[in-house]
Amino acid sequence: MGCAPIAHALWGSVMNYDPKNPKWYNRDRFILSNGHASALLYSMLYLTGYDMTIDDLKSFRQLGSRTPGHPESEMVGVEVSTGPLGQGVSNAVGMAIAESHLAALFNKPDFPVIDNYIYALCGDGCLEEGISHESASLAGHLKLGRLIVLYDDNSITIDGRTDISFSEDTLKRYEAYGWDVARVPDGDHDVAGILAAIERAKKVEDKPSIIAIRTTIGFGAAKQNTSAVHGSPLGWEDIDQVRAQFGFPAGEYFSVAEDVLQYYRTAGERGSAKAAAWAKLFEAYGAAFPAEHAELVRRMEGKLKGDITAVLPEMGGKDAATRSSSGVVLNALAAQYPELMGGSADLTPSNNTALKGSEDFSATNRAGRYLRFGVREHGMAAICNGMFAYGGFLPFCATFFVFVGYCMGAVRIAALSHYRVLFILTHDSIGVGEDGPTHQPIEQLWQLRNMPGITVLRPADGREVAGAYQQYMEGSGPVVLVLSRQNLPYLEGSSAAKVEKGAYVIREVEGTPDLVLLGTGSEVSMCVAAAEKMEGKKVRVVSMPSVELFEKQPREYQKAVLGENVPIMGVEAGATHGWEKFTHYQMGMTTFGASAPAAKVFEHFGLTVEKVVEKGEKLMNYYATHPIPAKLEDFGF
Amino acid sequence: MGCAPIAHALWGSVMNYDPKNPKWYNRDRFILSNGHASALLYSMLYLTGYDMTIDDLKSFRQLGSRTPGHPESEMVGVEVSTGPLGQGVSNAVGMAIAESHLAALFNKPDFPVIDNYIYALCGDGCLEEGISHESASLAGHLKLGRLIVLYDDNSITIDGRTDISFSEDTLKRYEAYGWDVARVPDGDHDVAGILAAIERAKKVEDKPSIIAIRTTIGFGAAKQNTSAVHGSPLGWEDIDQVRAQFGFPAGEYFSVAEDVLQYYRTAGERGSAKAAAWAKLFEAYGAAFPAEHAELVRRMEGKLKGDITAVLPEMGGKDAATRSSSGVVLNALAAQYPELMGGSADLTPSNNTALKGSEDFSATNRAGRYLRFGVREHGMAAICNGMFAYGGFLPFCATFFVFVGYCMGAVRIAALSHYRVLFILTHDSIGVGEDGPTHQPIEQLWQLRNMPGITVLRPADGREVAGAYQQYMEGSGPVVLVLSRQNLPYLEGSSAAKVEKGAYVIREVEGTPDLVLLGTGSEVSMCVAAAEKMEGKKVRVVSMPSVELFEKQPREYQKAVLGENVPIMGVEAGATHGWEKFTHYQMGMTTFGASAPAAKVFEHFGLTVEKVVEKGEKLMNYYATHPIPAKLEDFGF
Repeated sequence: MGCAPIAHALWGSVMNYDPKNPKWYNRDRFILSNGHASALLYSMLYLTGYDMTIDDLKSFRQLGSRTPGHPESEMVGVEVSTGPLGQGVSNAVGMAIAESHLAALFNKPDFPVIDNYIYALCGDGCLEEGISHESASLAGHLKLGRLIVLYDDNSITIDGRTDISFSEDTLKRYEAYGWDVARVPDGDHDVAGILAAIERAKKVEDKPSIIAIRTTIGFGAAKQNTSAVHGSPLGWEDIDQVRAQFGFPAGEYFSVAEDVLQYYRTAGERGSAKAAAWAKLFEAYGAAFPAEHAELVRRMEGKLKGDITAVLPEMGGKDAATRSSSGVVLNALAAQYPELMGGSADLTPSNNTALKGSEDFSATNRAGRYLRFGVREHGMAAICNGMFAYGGFLPFCATFFVFVGYCMGAVRIAALSHYRVLFILTHDSIGVGEDGPTHQPIEQLWQLRNMPGITVLRPADGREVAGAYQQYMEGSGPVVLVLSRQNLPYLEGSSAAKVEKGAYVIREVEGTPDLVLLGTGSEVSMCVAAAEKMEGKKVRVVSMPSVELFEKQPREYQKAVLGENVPIMGVEAGATHGWEKFTHYQMGMTTFGASAPAAKVFEHFGLTVEKVVEKGEKLMNYYATHPIPAKLEDFGF
Repeated sequence: MGCAPIAHALWGSVMNYDPKNPKWYNRDRFILSNGHASALLYSMLYLTGYDMTIDDLKSFRQLGSRTPGHPESEMVGVEVSTGPLGQGVSNAVGMAIAESHLAALFNKPDFPVIDNYIYALCGDGCLEEGISHESASLAGHLKLGRLIVLYDDNSITIDGRTDISFSEDTLKRYEAYGWDVARVPDGDHDVAGILAAIERAKKVEDKPSIIAIRTTIGFGAAKQNTSAVHGSPLGWEDIDQVRAQFGFPAGEYFSVAEDVLQYYRTAGERGSAKAAAWAKLFEAYGAAFPAEHAELVRRMEGKLKGDITAVLPEMGGKDAATRSSSGVVLNALAAQYPELMGGSADLTPSNNTALKGSEDFSATNRAGRYLRFGVREHGMAAICNGMFAYGGFLPFCATFFVFVGYCMGAVRIAALSHYRVLFILTHDSIGVGEDGPTHQPIEQLWQLRNMPGITVLRPADGREVAGAYQQYMEGSGPVVLVLSRQNLPYLEGSSAAKVEKGAYVIREVEGTPDLVLLGTGSEVSMCVAAAEKMEGKKVRVVSMPSVELFEKQPREYQKAVLGENVPIMGVEAGATHGWEKFTHYQMGMTTFGASAPAAKVFEHFGLTVEKVVEKGEKLMNYYATHPIPAKLEDFGF
């Protein structure tokens, strides 16, 4: 209710959008960063003529409806999933990067085919969240003029008045970031003032803009301007009172006056006309610049060109850290696929994400492709989400694996929204060594494997790195690459192609094995070396770069790989909960790590070839006299 | 090397510390937020006479040494574990809250027994991180005058010059937060300028201070002022060159000139004298105010008074959301234990963390005890870490469970450092209902269970809530309480006392059970109801409020609870990986949730009493003709 005048300004006159073609490439993007105000968005979608009915509005927050509690990215007219605060404004930064980059690449004189604004509506909460600081600081640095944030400055959050915890001068802070700032003192009534501020902001092309619009939460309600209207229904009495106040007929809930509907539908039709005009421009662009036209269409539709496998380098034959191999493969792909755009949170040389021959995306070089995110992991991940949601990109971002805990909120949004963001996370275990326990991941692998909708890949060598990238390029959701800092041996039996199965036999034996060793990443070579040492025993080694991909395989394949009625021992330098599904005994970490050279740390925690041999022997001995528990049973329900 | 003049100023003259009693209550706290500069801290500890030797310095980053790669909180002279950027400056905010609160409670005229400053040294990275924004904004709001941040403004990060990604006016930003700001233009040479700035900042009692000190990274090295000196060793040649430049004798590495050592040892002795003077003051305080003296000692030593169980309310007998029960128990404990201080990230009414009769801690009420953190989850968690590290507190903080992903970085530091912080996380499953998938936790339970050093408790009813609080109060590390939004039935067989075992039989049957149902939290009552419905079958129900606590029990107890040679089916409305250790079949979530009333969501995802009955029957049927795999085998290795 408090934001209604802002929405009226945006949807009634400011924004370019086509209700009949919600995915029009050149639409202005609208992000409801304060996603709890979803009813406002759905109402505007209905009013302006999107594929949204009064019945949809009536089934607000009901199972299977198109009007869920918070906007979900699959729904009509929703650009990104929002609700967790600070995500939306950060997505908007990514969209503004995307817009300016595509404009630089594709626009031609008289053909501004990419020429739109990014509007984000947010409340105090979004601006209190650290993620918004990170992305706002970067947006100011990058001078993203097409980004306009409308700050619903209502001074109320769930706990009460914001001044119980929030008394900073927010606009001064944004000025410090290099933003253009403005204020509308009476957002409840002054729509003209809102419009004027937006028009002014649009003209500031060398800075992002934030407009603080003073509003009254629950405007018109008896409980207006209190936290009581933040998350709770008004109650019928207050609803009737509000309706009466604004001149709505009594009792006719969900009714819209004809002139009001007409007003917004006309606005929607104006938008459709603009989209039609753009379509003509784009057609002419196609005639004048057919290659660029085809390429832009390809990118916006997310189609890959050519055969990935032809581009993937042959990675066999030498020892290397998987982070190094990742750098090689990323560069090979980036040379062919300009939609791969991204960077690192200030760890470029460590993450091996530098793109050879590419320049930095910057305020003065919009065609640059490498992003210097700064030490801003959460903002980085959300910016990549926004770039993907804009269309035309396969965004990648990188940091140390342990710092996925700094950006888990945004990783989750990627997983929930099927955003094809590539997270390149290096320094993946106690193998980090001297930097010690604050920098050594333990729990992170299973933290991500337990998250639905995301694929974790921990390759064992260069070939598996290539296969992992192929999974990302040909996949349909976010992918996490978990890569070693330390050198890993080249593995004779490794395979890029087999990564798609999630797990495969990397060292086979004749006949039924006595033992199966299952490793991932840096521990696969440990398993292979142990198997070689266990003379007289038939020891199969399985490499499992991805639990998620393995779980998608037919049970038959799974059983063929893991064996039946054979002891299975797993080795992974990480937390062990979860491995019980596949292994009878799991070697891993039950504590945090330690600061020492990597080899010493592995030794200290009993993760060595010798220990694998020793425990493998013990496990075989144990099961010589005990029944071997079945794994992966076919319950049939 | 670049920060040496700052350290010289602090340890040489500014700070009050006692090398012979590093835990002196009234010491100034020093936090190295840029933890990668640990060598600087260790050097100062050695120079000023802490229990730290040249040999300790020589074993820098070696296994078992007292000089790990990043400062670890168990080490002598280290206040908090740092390295992950932004944590330290946020811990410092918590310490400044702690200092001012204890001063308000305990100081008397002429007896300023708590009267110290909090110094945090940080680099650009800490200020780029969102967590520092959150805590800095709150620190400004709270006018924490005892907090002084020294910003090593060297314009270099790992990727190169900061201006590739960081061009904001940082001091203006801090001004906007309400901080006192100052600049020292030549931190390489102007120690007097640094000292003067600190003295000025100390006098500003109504604002936290930040002093930007322009330094040259790797000052004196051939590679100074480049990212090449950020994370890599200088090399011998450059080391020799630096030593020659500063007049150190050639070849005598790890030697310290006698006059230099004397200078710092004298500084350390001055500190010890101050501590001795304070001890006299404190003794006199004890004579004048014996009760306050005893209470302050008790708090600083972390001893609980009285018998917890006498304070814990009897929680049986009625249906309630576990978040509501949590509010009751928290309030009962808070009335007895003033060291329980904390609050919520703007979700007080939802998290049920309001403390009845307590006032807010604020700029004008330092004795207030409830913290209004604002929508700042990551800052909140790190602030609580800092409060615990200061001493005298059992800090608690709260948000929705799903947003633990916003603060995982700080939760990890709590786990690593054994900080007894209580995380009260409500709205713990798809039972959240209408708010939909962005607000419904799925993966979070196992994300935390996989983290070493932290105990997750998901109680099933009010009694288990009481037991969970007891575990926190009597425990030795951080605890996560995972609580329902929705009402849960009172369980006849539940027990507060048995929570300490992690799991126990909540519904027993005579003789060997046909089936064991294992539930946690809101799913325990579902299991009990299903067991009642399965007529003619002997169905035991196990409640497992804590996997971690159960894993600490003797194998004998574990087997007695779970049974042997019995099918075990688990039910938890969350991700399932990890449950394979205990159950043969696990009902849970493999996707994200949905927006609808809670009951509809549970039904949609097949988590109902009827489904538990149906699948339980099928599991029994399956195992009627298949061997039942052993769980929790005694491998003996």
